[in-house]
Amino acid sequence: MDIAALLASAGINVLLCAVLFSLYSILRKQPSNANVYFGRRLASRRDKHVDLLERFVPSPTWVMKAWETTQDEILDIGGMDAVVFSRMLVFSIRVFTIAAVICTILVLPANYYGRDRIHKDIPFESLEVFTIENVQEGSRLWAHCLALYIITLAACTLLYFEFKNVANLRLVHIIGASAPNPSHFAILVRGIPWSSEESYYDTVKKFFSYYHASAYLSHQMVYKSGTVQKMKDDAELMYKMLGDSLGKTCKPSFSQCCFCGGPTNSFKKISNEIDSINGRTGYTDRHIDGRKKECAAAFVFFKNRYAALMAAQNLQTSNPMLWVTDLAPEPNDVYWTNLCIPYRQLWVRKIATVVASGTFMLVFLIPVTFAQGLTQLDKLEKMFPFLTEILQMKFMSEVVIGYLPSAILVLFLCAVPPVMMLFSAVEGSISRSGRKKSACYKVLYFTIWNVFFVNVFAGSVISQLSVFSSITELPAQLAKAVPAQATYFTTYVLSSGWASLACEIMQLFPLFCNLFQRFVLRSGDDSNDGALSFPYHTEVPRVLLFGFLGFSCSILAPLILPFLLFYFFLAYLVYRNQILNVYVTRYDGGGQYWPIAHNTAVFSLIFAQVIALGVFGLKQSTVASGFTIPLLLGTLLFHQYCRERFLPVFRNTATQVLIDMDKRDERCGRMKDIYNQLHTAYCQFSSDSSKSECFSCHHKESTRVHPPEDLETGKENNNKDMSWPPVHRSS
Amino acid sequence: MDIAALLASAGINVLLCAVLFSLYSILRKQPSNANVYFGRRLASRRDKHVDLLERFVPSPTWVMKAWETTQDEILDIGGMDAVVFSRMLVFSIRVFTIAAVICTILVLPANYYGRDRIHKDIPFESLEVFTIENVQEGSRLWAHCLALYIITLAACTLLYFEFKNVANLRLVHIIGASAPNPSHFAILVRGIPWSSEESYYDTVKKFFSYYHASAYLSHQMVYKSGTVQKMKDDAELMYKMLGDSLGKTCKPSFSQCCFCGGPTNSFKKISNEIDSINGRTGYTDRHIDGRKKECAAAFVFFKNRYAALMAAQNLQTSNPMLWVTDLAPEPNDVYWTNLCIPYRQLWVRKIATVVASGTFMLVFLIPVTFAQGLTQLDKLEKMFPFLTEILQMKFMSEVVIGYLPSAILVLFLCAVPPVMMLFSAVEGSISRSGRKKSACYKVLYFTIWNVFFVNVFAGSVISQLSVFSSITELPAQLAKAVPAQATYFTTYVLSSGWASLACEIMQLFPLFCNLFQRFVLRSGDDSNDGALSFPYHTEVPRVLLFGFLGFSCSILAPLILPFLLFYFFLAYLVYRNQILNVYVTRYDGGGQYWPIAHNTAVFSLIFAQVIALGVFGLKQSTVASGFTIPLLLGTLLFHQYCRERFLPVFRNTATQVLIDMDKRDERCGRMKDIYNQLHTAYCQFSSDSSKSECFSCHHKESTRVHPPEDLETGKENNNKDMSWPPVHRSS
Repeated sequence: MDIAALLASAGINVLLCAVLFSLYSILRKQPSNANVYFGRRLASRRDKHVDLLERFVPSPTWVMKAWETTQDEILDIGGMDAVVFSRMLVFSIRVFTIAAVICTILVLPANYYGRDRIHKDIPFESLEVFTIENVQEGSRLWAHCLALYIITLAACTLLYFEFKNVANLRLVHIIGASAPNPSHFAILVRGIPWSSEESYYDTVKKFFSYYHASAYLSHQMVYKSGTVQKMKDDAELMYKMLGDSLGKTCKPSFSQCCFCGGPTNSFKKISNEIDSINGRTGYTDRHIDGRKKECAAAFVFFKNRYAALMAAQNLQTSNPMLWVTDLAPEPNDVYWTNLCIPYRQLWVRKIATVVASGTFMLVFLIPVTFAQGLTQLDKLEKMFPFLTEILQMKFMSEVVIGYLPSAILVLFLCAVPPVMMLFSAVEGSISRSGRKKSACYKVLYFTIWNVFFVNVFAGSVISQLSVFSSITELPAQLAKAVPAQATYFTTYVLSSGWASLACEIMQLFPLFCNLFQRFVLRSGDDSNDGALSFPYHTEVPRVLLFGFLGFSCSILAPLILPFLLFYFFLAYLVYRNQILNVYVTRYDGGGQYWPIAHNTAVFSLIFAQVIALGVFGLKQSTVASGFTIPLLLGTLLFHQYCRERFLPVFRNTATQVLIDMDKRDERCGRMKDIYNQLHTAYCQFSSDSSKSECFSCHHKESTRVHPPEDLETGKENNNKDMSWPPVHRSS
Repeated sequence: MDIAALLASAGINVLLCAVLFSLYSILRKQPSNANVYFGRRLASRRDKHVDLLERFVPSPTWVMKAWETTQDEILDIGGMDAVVFSRMLVFSIRVFTIAAVICTILVLPANYYGRDRIHKDIPFESLEVFTIENVQEGSRLWAHCLALYIITLAACTLLYFEFKNVANLRLVHIIGASAPNPSHFAILVRGIPWSSEESYYDTVKKFFSYYHASAYLSHQMVYKSGTVQKMKDDAELMYKMLGDSLGKTCKPSFSQCCFCGGPTNSFKKISNEIDSINGRTGYTDRHIDGRKKECAAAFVFFKNRYAALMAAQNLQTSNPMLWVTDLAPEPNDVYWTNLCIPYRQLWVRKIATVVASGTFMLVFLIPVTFAQGLTQLDKLEKMFPFLTEILQMKFMSEVVIGYLPSAILVLFLCAVPPVMMLFSAVEGSISRSGRKKSACYKVLYFTIWNVFFVNVFAGSVISQLSVFSSITELPAQLAKAVPAQATYFTTYVLSSGWASLACEIMQLFPLFCNLFQRFVLRSGDDSNDGALSFPYHTEVPRVLLFGFLGFSCSILAPLILPFLLFYFFLAYLVYRNQILNVYVTRYDGGGQYWPIAHNTAVFSLIFAQVIALGVFGLKQSTVASGFTIPLLLGTLLFHQYCRERFLPVFRNTATQVLIDMDKRDERCGRMKDIYNQLHTAYCQFSSDSSKSECFSCHHKESTRVHPPEDLETGKENNNKDMSWPPVHRSS
């Protein structure tokens, strides 16, 4: 592949991006697409009138808007996770700008003049002339080694300050939150021991009021949910009610708020029935039925943050499978269906999903190797002889080489995130953010393995695995294979990278759904029920993959860097726009994606160094090899230092921070209000739409079924603003 | 090597053991050796008179005594660690008895008749006839597969119940301790931030009385110690005192107990000086000097166990390098010199020791391969031609083959534990038990690598490492190499195993020291200053290595099993005797060695299965290979289950347990007494011998330098029995 072919490929992509972005700038101005492109803003109706002409002229206003938005605004709108994601892009832009400058000055000339040969005109020069493959054996390679040093040092410095910055932001975000976070006061208890004499409710109460007497406030059981369970319950209880109604009158009491706004109407009534049953103390059949619906899990609320954290962290009893405590996720972050999974199953589920993900990764190789085969024109001609004529056209062959294989790969890759998300759900994560983070890890491993390694060691499954079975030869193998595949990765950045951004901003799937709904179903409601949350589990791995490709290829084939830089710059604008306009932030993950990004960046650096070691070895440059080893060790030490210095902050909140917050709230006298709202916050059977209903029924509430003893009842605060707002869901 | 040679080797060893054990039974009755063989009992002087004739007749009373001692007595005398060690031996005896029975019935006939050949008389039969090497390729091997299944199932069942048992024992031991453990109330804080305005003492006080106001009791700084530091301080302060005494009178106040019983007299006075300096509030030169001596570390005492645990577990501030908290070790377990290491150094130290241990492991190969070379007679004859004549004698050649190489290896191995102990000390462990545990891990890895793998893959360092670089071929490589080396391992059990027990019970080194002292130095004091604590870091790895050899070789070369069983049985008696009589238990590690034993046993099982897989593959028995894979997966699942079920109990004490203990002590009104004794418990400058001095000066104590505010002073309890006794140091 020569420079011209690469530029052709780049041209196609730039054109495509330009068309799509223009189309986007028009489509976004159509009022009918508001729920596609302004999902987040729909709550505060945009009433700005746009005149007809302006509506159909492409305009770059969104770019300006995305560029001008400050980090604080992003934090307000998208929460910590959005900020962390934007920091990843900033880090990438910075480090690859440095890398591009260094490589243009040092590496590119060294590669180009690396071998005595007659150079063609640059447009017709093969791309390999610009890679390290063009350097003669026995050269000094000091330029490459120096570039590697500068890139590593720059990356480590930037990583250090970014980690520090993100850790600080996280802290400020926790301390400075306008509304107190109910999850700080709550823990999730699983594995409550079953007793034939007491309900789970009483067991929890007894345990916590004995062992955490001073700090225990109240608790809230988790009930079995899910469609099947609901229908079963409905049928069963309806039968009982009919039977009972002959003997005595049934008086459903609207006793607990959390059940009054269920999505199904029948369930609403029946849940109340369950509650009223729970409220009685006698041992009737009904009581036992009521207990059946309780899971061995509960949210326990504490009087202050420190006590909650302490209860969450320690082993409660000497059997680690009972009374398992975790910090509760934010109310909107709770993944209710997983809470009822018996705790004893979880370790098996975890192992099963690891095995399943691994198998999926390996089976996936089959379509990928097929797609890989398509890059070789001669193979294609042999397979489909009727294509020979078309493929001999210069333009077509360039398209096929430069574009088609990666496009096929991208299509296949679309199926991966949902599968990984499913695995992460089966794994038993208690929070949505935890599920997404786990899926993010899986997709990341998957992507790096299937995009990078499989392409580098092209061939059958077995031959790829056998490469990994001989560890000592790995650097040499990589040194041979990676530069040869650098061209492919460059086209991959062009096709997959740029195109993915265009697709992201166009929101093709929601757009088609919207069109379908509007013109086929003819329904015209603007409801933003379908407003999506940011798909971190697909976008974080994608950005990290490009970073990985960048580090791995930078000194081997520096031509990848300008394309990569363009990608990151575009990504910065696009994703900021999406965070501002499209995606709704329902919960806050607290910046947990940064450690993933940090680890991947360090892994990429070390990987690049190992490849460089192999290459320097192949080119018989012992001095350069010798200088790479201390760099490798230094990077490892840097990584360990960052782990020691910053990682604990992401795992735990410091005592000092929590106690300061507790004392502040106590001084302000806000504690009572906070206590009052804990129950409503963790409301299992209220969807977002029914939340208002949930609040309105507060008025009817005469008694709580399970009133917290040491809490003033009746002082219910119905002010909507005082309810637990989903953190940072701004207007 | 044939059966006769093996039996000759066994004969030598049995004879040697018999002689040494008889010698032991005589020596132990000599009153002059009491401090060698009854180090632990010396406190309660044995006044039993033994008449002269009886003194010189070997007697098996010690065997009876060791056999009859119950587990509770061992627990009383040796603490949890001794019990855990004895459980390891019991587990080994049980599992290898089962293995021996199964292998004799199933495997041995299958091996012996595995190939059509004319059998010689059994004594002249080569040992290889009894190994799996004698089985023809293409055989069914169901006997071996079944034996593997039975051994694995038996081992897993026993491991499960042992783990459960040990976890329970640990719990009972914690709850049922007669004297409350001060370490439950104390935490160790390191990384106290330096401030130019306050002393560390005030910083700690301010921090904990603000953030842990309700539970904070008092604290105790750690001071710089070590000989160099002491001499420096002495000189410096002596100079100041001389200078000052011209101007004003120096009035040393005997203020803090912890400094009154220092080992050096000069230091005692000066430490008091430091204290009196600390007591003042003005900012004089002296004050700054006094502060210099404080480390950035302190013991902080809490009012109850739960609060202490909670403070120890959580991150204190948002900088994880500051205010680092850990649960305090037991007073006698504290490794004072390591407490002053700046916390920031620790991660570097850890990495450095890991690297150093790894390097040591690899460099050690050189003498081992030399020793290994000695097993081959022809090589020896070539090297030392003058030995040819001697080596042609049948007896001598048997000795050389069967005994000499392993004896050399054992001698070299003697140097390993001290080196590993040094590494573990440098690592920065805060407790002696932690240091020993860490050394135990290092010695274990070292032993398994250098005794097993190096012998299996005999050759140069490089060729051994290259075996590990190709992972997929490892089972096949092992399958070829392990059965060939099984004979060597059998002789290793005979020589190293049995001899090590004989040496252990003879206590050769202390015995010679004693003789030297008595007959050369002519000093006749019976002081037991030198009474040793149990060397778990050498004995645990040894026992586990033999278990590892047993599992690996059981179905390949079952002849190893009787010798191994004899070893374990002897070890059971010998070590129990040593625990009862020789070793002093100064602190209790809380049974932390069991997880090591469990992990090693599971690793051994998995390793045996991998080898079996390789062997079945080599013998072309696909059915047996197929059946081994589910066994392997089952074992891995079992391991994971045990980790989930039992391991957390070894890491943390459960909230329930701690709060129950707190409530019990509060009910009994014992808390005040406990508080009073916390300071004296963590007394940095008192060695065991000066403890009495430390207590007697309590009377003189007029005021405490740092009186805990909320504690009644003056109610000092001088009753020696009420002082913190080293847990389970029975009379």
